[in-house]
Amino acid sequence: MREFEGAVTWEEDGLHLIDQTALPDEVRVLHVDTVAGLLDAISRLAVRGAPALGAVGALGVVVALDEAAREGWDARRLDEAIDAIRSARPTAVNLAWGVDQVAPLARQGRDVALDRALAIVDDDRRGNHAMGRLGADWLAARLGERPLRLLTHCNAGSLATTGWGTALGVVRELAARGLVDHVLVDETRPLLQGSRLTAWELAEAGIEHVVIPDGAAAGLILGRKVDAVVIGADRIAANGDTANKVGSAGLALASDAAGIPFVVAAPETTIDAATPTGDGIEIEERDEREVLSFAGRRVAPATSRGLNPAFDVTPARLVTVIVTDRRVIRVADGERPGDVQRGIGRDSG
Amino acid sequence: MREFEGAVTWEEDGLHLIDQTALPDEVRVLHVDTVAGLLDAISRLAVRGAPALGAVGALGVVVALDEAAREGWDARRLDEAIDAIRSARPTAVNLAWGVDQVAPLARQGRDVALDRALAIVDDDRRGNHAMGRLGADWLAARLGERPLRLLTHCNAGSLATTGWGTALGVVRELAARGLVDHVLVDETRPLLQGSRLTAWELAEAGIEHVVIPDGAAAGLILGRKVDAVVIGADRIAANGDTANKVGSAGLALASDAAGIPFVVAAPETTIDAATPTGDGIEIEERDEREVLSFAGRRVAPATSRGLNPAFDVTPARLVTVIVTDRRVIRVADGERPGDVQRGIGRDSG
Repeated sequence: MREFEGAVTWEEDGLHLIDQTALPDEVRVLHVDTVAGLLDAISRLAVRGAPALGAVGALGVVVALDEAAREGWDARRLDEAIDAIRSARPTAVNLAWGVDQVAPLARQGRDVALDRALAIVDDDRRGNHAMGRLGADWLAARLGERPLRLLTHCNAGSLATTGWGTALGVVRELAARGLVDHVLVDETRPLLQGSRLTAWELAEAGIEHVVIPDGAAAGLILGRKVDAVVIGADRIAANGDTANKVGSAGLALASDAAGIPFVVAAPETTIDAATPTGDGIEIEERDEREVLSFAGRRVAPATSRGLNPAFDVTPARLVTVIVTDRRVIRVADGERPGDVQRGIGRDSG
Repeated sequence: MREFEGAVTWEEDGLHLIDQTALPDEVRVLHVDTVAGLLDAISRLAVRGAPALGAVGALGVVVALDEAAREGWDARRLDEAIDAIRSARPTAVNLAWGVDQVAPLARQGRDVALDRALAIVDDDRRGNHAMGRLGADWLAARLGERPLRLLTHCNAGSLATTGWGTALGVVRELAARGLVDHVLVDETRPLLQGSRLTAWELAEAGIEHVVIPDGAAAGLILGRKVDAVVIGADRIAANGDTANKVGSAGLALASDAAGIPFVVAAPETTIDAATPTGDGIEIEERDEREVLSFAGRRVAPATSRGLNPAFDVTPARLVTVIVTDRRVIRVADGERPGDVQRGIGRDSG
């Protein structure tokens, strides 16, 4: 089995994505060489996860440049294509960030743009490992050097990044140190990123895990079956309010009630210092059919409507720490990610 | 369309159940005339819901008596059959309660037993309406006479009772008074009682409703999109700790954080005064395949395991009130259902 690391790669012939809608049944690789194909892959979640979307935003600019050259687009058509990538999903700040890192370099030529995009991919990969070490260090210091019962939600693993994962990076690092008893995996309705993707990654990595319905998590946490919750993030406001896959806020409430750590693992690029609190984070609403149907089969009555918010916002007061590729932000102790963030001079800050 | 009320009926030829596994695609009625058939219906959740199981326990004794007469069973065989019904599901106290109401009368003849069982069905039906009125009165007094945005979990409706429902009885009564804006319906994985059953009942009743993934509830409650949560119960300990469909405890945490009422609607028979706290409630674990698969299709990797607790226990401190067919128990104000329960001389107390 090849060492699996990251859902997004750039090869001779361009961008390759693991089609996450086909997992775990099949590891299908998409070759994406048009903006339309990229937008389709993003919108149907063939590629997803905040850090992976950052890489896709960056590499997507190169896809657009290559298509423009091939098809003879004028500058306006190219700008529109890049804008379309930029706004393909509203909640994850990384997508726009990735585009904005590379788009300004387009005038300096395609190869300059590609170099910058590949540097972002490399940064993410290295950042994942740094984050894994920081998170594992913090959890081991807080809970002791013992096999932990962890709980995670959605997929914040290799498939959500270009590396070995954010939340799952922490889990992998702990497992490498012999500090994982097992991982409870929320199945994560409606799209089952937990049972399809996270379970697949943990199975490939040989890490003990058990899939549970999302509704079971709070009762298991209250019942002392979990030592810590570790999740990713799609956008973090300056005050520490954290947008992540819908269902995360409930885990934070349960963790708070049980007195266990609620750990958010995400790269610095997920911190949106320009947004003061979670109230300013737009929550993507997805098609109601994802809730009302399963695998193409309608489960609710034909006249029933559905509501499908893709994310929720966990209030900062419920977040114990945010682990990034550079630091551990002790939110429960009053540290605010945005303040320090501005202090270290972030591009978009 | 016939007035739909209750999933359990007794007719000339015996017990009839609406097969809830076929809804909402098809309203299929099962004629149950053997204990084996009844046990099968109970275990695969063709019939479910605490009050409906109470009725099924009571009427099940008559099914057993009729089968014993037909097949020439001896007393021991009959006792074993009745015991098997009694313990077909461990968490719902109503099933055993229903059996115990009727089994002692068996010696007085099948018709005496049937009369008692039918009286239980009638009591449940009348009790549902009383509960609906008490719950609606309490909510209208607490929140004002305005259209409410309610949230419910699993199915505590007609399909869970012999009447018009416990939690959904409260909703129906509020709707009849013009006090329902809409109902958010948790889909309730793994078996989707919310999207299949509750949505179907609300659609039939013409009550506005929206199906959501279970994970979305906490974020919507924290985001002030819900005025009150109303759920049923499978067993209530003497101190008010409430076992209900897995996912309920998380709703209670969110309701507490948002300062909205968390209302449990259940008949007196759901109160298990002999069990002091929720720690004494056995939680049924169901087959992991319910979590790992959907509609016969495996969704998780072949090597992944699942955990499938059917219920969780909401601590009494998170329950605002318990509404029964006789009273409103103000748990948040320190009232304990078990104390009063014993005071009014419950048979099994």
